[in-house]
Amino acid sequence: MAAGFDIERYRLDRKEKVDLADYDPGDKGSFKQKEDVEEAMERMKRQLEEMQEMLYASKTHGVLILFQGMDCSGKDGVVAKVLSGLNPHGFRAESFKQPTGEEAAHDFLWRAHKVGPARGMITSFNRSYYEDVLITRVHGTIDKKEANKRLKHIQQFEKHLADSGILVVKIFLHISQDFQLGKLKERLENPKKLWKFDPSDLAERKHWDAYMQAYEAAFKATGTKTNPWHIVPANHRWYRDYVTLGIIVDAMSRLKLIYPVVEIDRSSIEAVAAADE
Amino acid sequence: MAAGFDIERYRLDRKEKVDLADYDPGDKGSFKQKEDVEEAMERMKRQLEEMQEMLYASKTHGVLILFQGMDCSGKDGVVAKVLSGLNPHGFRAESFKQPTGEEAAHDFLWRAHKVGPARGMITSFNRSYYEDVLITRVHGTIDKKEANKRLKHIQQFEKHLADSGILVVKIFLHISQDFQLGKLKERLENPKKLWKFDPSDLAERKHWDAYMQAYEAAFKATGTKTNPWHIVPANHRWYRDYVTLGIIVDAMSRLKLIYPVVEIDRSSIEAVAAADE
Repeated sequence: MAAGFDIERYRLDRKEKVDLADYDPGDKGSFKQKEDVEEAMERMKRQLEEMQEMLYASKTHGVLILFQGMDCSGKDGVVAKVLSGLNPHGFRAESFKQPTGEEAAHDFLWRAHKVGPARGMITSFNRSYYEDVLITRVHGTIDKKEANKRLKHIQQFEKHLADSGILVVKIFLHISQDFQLGKLKERLENPKKLWKFDPSDLAERKHWDAYMQAYEAAFKATGTKTNPWHIVPANHRWYRDYVTLGIIVDAMSRLKLIYPVVEIDRSSIEAVAAADE
Repeated sequence: MAAGFDIERYRLDRKEKVDLADYDPGDKGSFKQKEDVEEAMERMKRQLEEMQEMLYASKTHGVLILFQGMDCSGKDGVVAKVLSGLNPHGFRAESFKQPTGEEAAHDFLWRAHKVGPARGMITSFNRSYYEDVLITRVHGTIDKKEANKRLKHIQQFEKHLADSGILVVKIFLHISQDFQLGKLKERLENPKKLWKFDPSDLAERKHWDAYMQAYEAAFKATGTKTNPWHIVPANHRWYRDYVTLGIIVDAMSRLKLIYPVVEIDRSSIEAVAAADE
């Protein structure tokens, strides 16, 4: 689909053991710089917009694009860069923060299910129910057994979505620890970014390896043929955007969307013309 | 704010009697064509994006941009053209269709209130609670007395929003009857647009004058200094986009948004640097 990188390379769809150390967050495919992918980006954006229009018109499928990644991996940024050109009436960006009282009182899939895409719509998730097997596992709120149980529920939930016409595109934005440190410093030094700085992000850095292990377990348990995971190298923002867009366009192309065939009484054409009389 | 048109000309903020026949839907200000406004559009879009970032960061205000207009007036289009560049995490496009059972069982402001913007957010409304004094009035579901009562509730509701930090920007997209006919024909002739065609739109054309009167009554009752109405000429799509963007940028500028002043323990900078040790 998108030239210059092989989507298969970044795809996890066999429930196999994954070692994130095998994936280079600084990967740039066969490219050197942003300018090398600009033309392809524009072309793919047009494709995506056309497919969104057909999706919205036909209402045969919905699309859920789920982003996970460490702090500073660019989950907000990728949505702004790759998806902001979509027609806002057919697209929603959802984020999941600390659960509210009502959310925490429900099962862990409830709040995400509630705001998932209807057929005809595209919804992006900035974080998701995967946090319930990541942060909880890292901080010991749940044990391995409970995590495995939840992962089974997640896999079944995503299968249910697929069976209901919802395409689930799962993307992990992969950055290095050094890259994150640089970004945190940038926030501190730029008055326009200082408001994004949260001291607790620093504390989380200590758990980096535990997070990677929790992610690897999640990929292994839920990276299926129908609902694969994608590990997107994200140290280079432009390459992150390029690969992400390529993955989305590739996945949506396979839905083979078309404009709905509308049966219309052609005499209404004359009625239109006569309507002013 | 935006050069080449005087916002005051399109603004209704004195609860005065309005005659829509005084407003030319084909107005192009002092311009001839799209190219004349392109540079200003780009500049205003950058301004809007910067203001959105400050709005999102400071969370002192929210922004509700409400679009009303006849079928084919371009309510969807203006959102796609003017607002699609916004950061999706801080923006939502809501539309109001035929009320569901649950919605109809509540008061007429309920469903809109529920999805209005939080502070920090921008929300656009494609149609709104104004339909409850328009379509209902035109079809005689409510009488004049009931309409006037509802208009008072609307004015008070919008005042409540303003008092709570929500900027309400109200825009009526003004087209001519002939223009609408042309657009309906276009839908019939273009296979990519046929799905948008709804025969009932034709029937509604017969009530054009009654709609204009219902709109005029709504403008008179709710066009206040704090929450004015704007009548945007919409026969020329590019001029519609230009004036709409100008109105939004002008209104948001007056909020005098700034990035929040964050008090931060500067020793955390060193902590960042040391976090990897």
